[in-house]
Amino acid sequence: MAAMHCGIKRNAAREDLTLIVSDFPATAAGVYTTNLVFAAPVGWDRKQTPSDTIRAVIVNSGNANACTGEQGDRDCQQMAHLAANVVGAQADQALVLSTGIIGEFMPLKKVAAGIDALSQRLASDEAALEAAARGMMTTDTVHKIASRTVSLGAKSVQITGMCKGAAMIGPNMATMLGLVLTDAKIPAQQLQRMLTEIVEDTFNCISVDGHMSTNDTVLLVANGAAENQALAGADLEKFQTALQQVCAQLARKIPEDGEGATHLITIEIHGCATRQAARAIACSVGNSPLVKTAVAGADPNWGRIVSAAGYAGVPFDPSGVDLRVNGHLLYQSGAPVKFGAAQVSASIRDSRDTLLELTFREGDSKIRFWTTDLTADYVRLNADYHT
Amino acid sequence: MAAMHCGIKRNAAREDLTLIVSDFPATAAGVYTTNLVFAAPVGWDRKQTPSDTIRAVIVNSGNANACTGEQGDRDCQQMAHLAANVVGAQADQALVLSTGIIGEFMPLKKVAAGIDALSQRLASDEAALEAAARGMMTTDTVHKIASRTVSLGAKSVQITGMCKGAAMIGPNMATMLGLVLTDAKIPAQQLQRMLTEIVEDTFNCISVDGHMSTNDTVLLVANGAAENQALAGADLEKFQTALQQVCAQLARKIPEDGEGATHLITIEIHGCATRQAARAIACSVGNSPLVKTAVAGADPNWGRIVSAAGYAGVPFDPSGVDLRVNGHLLYQSGAPVKFGAAQVSASIRDSRDTLLELTFREGDSKIRFWTTDLTADYVRLNADYHT
Repeated sequence: MAAMHCGIKRNAAREDLTLIVSDFPATAAGVYTTNLVFAAPVGWDRKQTPSDTIRAVIVNSGNANACTGEQGDRDCQQMAHLAANVVGAQADQALVLSTGIIGEFMPLKKVAAGIDALSQRLASDEAALEAAARGMMTTDTVHKIASRTVSLGAKSVQITGMCKGAAMIGPNMATMLGLVLTDAKIPAQQLQRMLTEIVEDTFNCISVDGHMSTNDTVLLVANGAAENQALAGADLEKFQTALQQVCAQLARKIPEDGEGATHLITIEIHGCATRQAARAIACSVGNSPLVKTAVAGADPNWGRIVSAAGYAGVPFDPSGVDLRVNGHLLYQSGAPVKFGAAQVSASIRDSRDTLLELTFREGDSKIRFWTTDLTADYVRLNADYHT
Repeated sequence: MAAMHCGIKRNAAREDLTLIVSDFPATAAGVYTTNLVFAAPVGWDRKQTPSDTIRAVIVNSGNANACTGEQGDRDCQQMAHLAANVVGAQADQALVLSTGIIGEFMPLKKVAAGIDALSQRLASDEAALEAAARGMMTTDTVHKIASRTVSLGAKSVQITGMCKGAAMIGPNMATMLGLVLTDAKIPAQQLQRMLTEIVEDTFNCISVDGHMSTNDTVLLVANGAAENQALAGADLEKFQTALQQVCAQLARKIPEDGEGATHLITIEIHGCATRQAARAIACSVGNSPLVKTAVAGADPNWGRIVSAAGYAGVPFDPSGVDLRVNGHLLYQSGAPVKFGAAQVSASIRDSRDTLLELTFREGDSKIRFWTTDLTADYVRLNADYHT
């Protein structure tokens, strides 16, 4: 892989183009935004995956290639063609990830020259990986990488993922951009099932502002270089656990880097009838501006949390609800509990991490969800983004 | 009616208790929050309406009587009992409206003394009406009243409404508190049908932060003092039009007074298959923090508006979408249009009102929705509210 500044972003110190190639045809799975207004690369990748012939992934930041009509589709196909050509493959053997401003056409000459330059610099070391992750950044303040090694009998496989995202992060979808690479050998259909399942508990359990992007994509690419046996039984479980950990670690990094955020809020929902119900409640709490500003102000204003659960569209018995904030019980069986407000407030103020635990008495399903607080800085960053 | 400071709010200059009585038994209709976690007075009023025996409405601000368990229910019933007692009526002839902090018990001694004092000061002039409207205010900066007179043959009827609300305003429900009074004679069932229908296009078409309250209530009380004939035909239409105007004017006043807001955003959705579809799209756009911060920053960042429509959960053809901002065409048939960004930005910056018009090609249904921008001041106000 390799990354560089090809000229899409104004700041010449920032990478805006990443090329990744595989020496072997790889299987690939994808999960995409459910937004009806989706970007050209989402349409392209959705058509190609699951696949068992992928040789290249081309990623750009600074331009989303979204809301760009038919020219956007042609530009995206051309990017796939140029990237695949580096390894002598066809356009449909390359996947495309784009992120950045919506509604502007891709500067294709710069991208073409960039792909040409990158083809001369491909490397497989740590520096190349970090540059690749930086190449997908927009308003992110840090690059985001997670990695695991799994021993499968005599063979060992590597899972390495990168992602980007700091705003326009809403739940019930994939996420901004996520790319997970592995040298494991896994058939495309099995890969797709695995990714779809794992995204539900990871990239679909985060939020910054509840605004679903036009470009959200998570790709999982497996090129089989590790030459492992077909995954089954204990080996399959080991691999899935490691993949889940990589995805969870990557997903968490997005709200952790949320625009203007001063707190990473972990919402744990217990005792729901279904996982979907638990996620709906977590989303409702995690997207409430009143909950998010309360955490920003270190205010243990539990009424906002309980009332946000109440409008999630999920039936539950209000008299069976408990709430803990950073381990302190504030609300039990649907009624207030005496607590030390100053102590709870201090526990929020003095840590970047806030834990909200809501327990229901409807069943055994649970979920963990990550979101940010909402600060004046988020508003400033997003009021000034474009013009 | 009469209002006073009885001691629920700390600031002694602020009214926190309003008593309204009718000399005649009035019919009454109500529309309430759909939040599962609802306040005691919502439960009480829901049980009483529609009614044809209402004699009193007691309103307090500073305490929501929400999440207060069985004691909250007893306190609410006691408030109804005391208010009804002023006119020698029974508890179930009084309706209760409460708003303010969640999770604290009602200071019932102060409220009881207050109702006693108010019973000596009842008046029907403009000053009493304004005091009554101030008595329901929390973070509102202005009181909110709207009024119409309707001639029905030889008789003339009056419709006067008041409401409160500046945050914790989410759509698909009633609103914070709204109370509409009329001397028209209308049976309770007809009154309820009328209110339910009109709330859909008025109080259910506003948002400040998308957080649905535990206390949202709109009451319509008609005491028949005007002695009009049964409403039908042209008279019915005239009355409904006037009632719709009063409710729309009141509803608009809430986001107009939205916490920290510098813009009132009017969202007009045209060309949808159903009114529900149009409202869902309006909600999605009107609750996006990215759309709201863009307006705060006078940024014609249309991609945020179009993409928010795309995740509303409503099917539509993306290539049939047009967007106008303050009358300027920015997006046509799903593709960008050249426009003067500086000119559009100036049109947002130089006015408190911003108009977003989205047109689809799915049908003839439309809706108008009011929301606020999102500013650093909203965050500051809500980070510091409680502790």
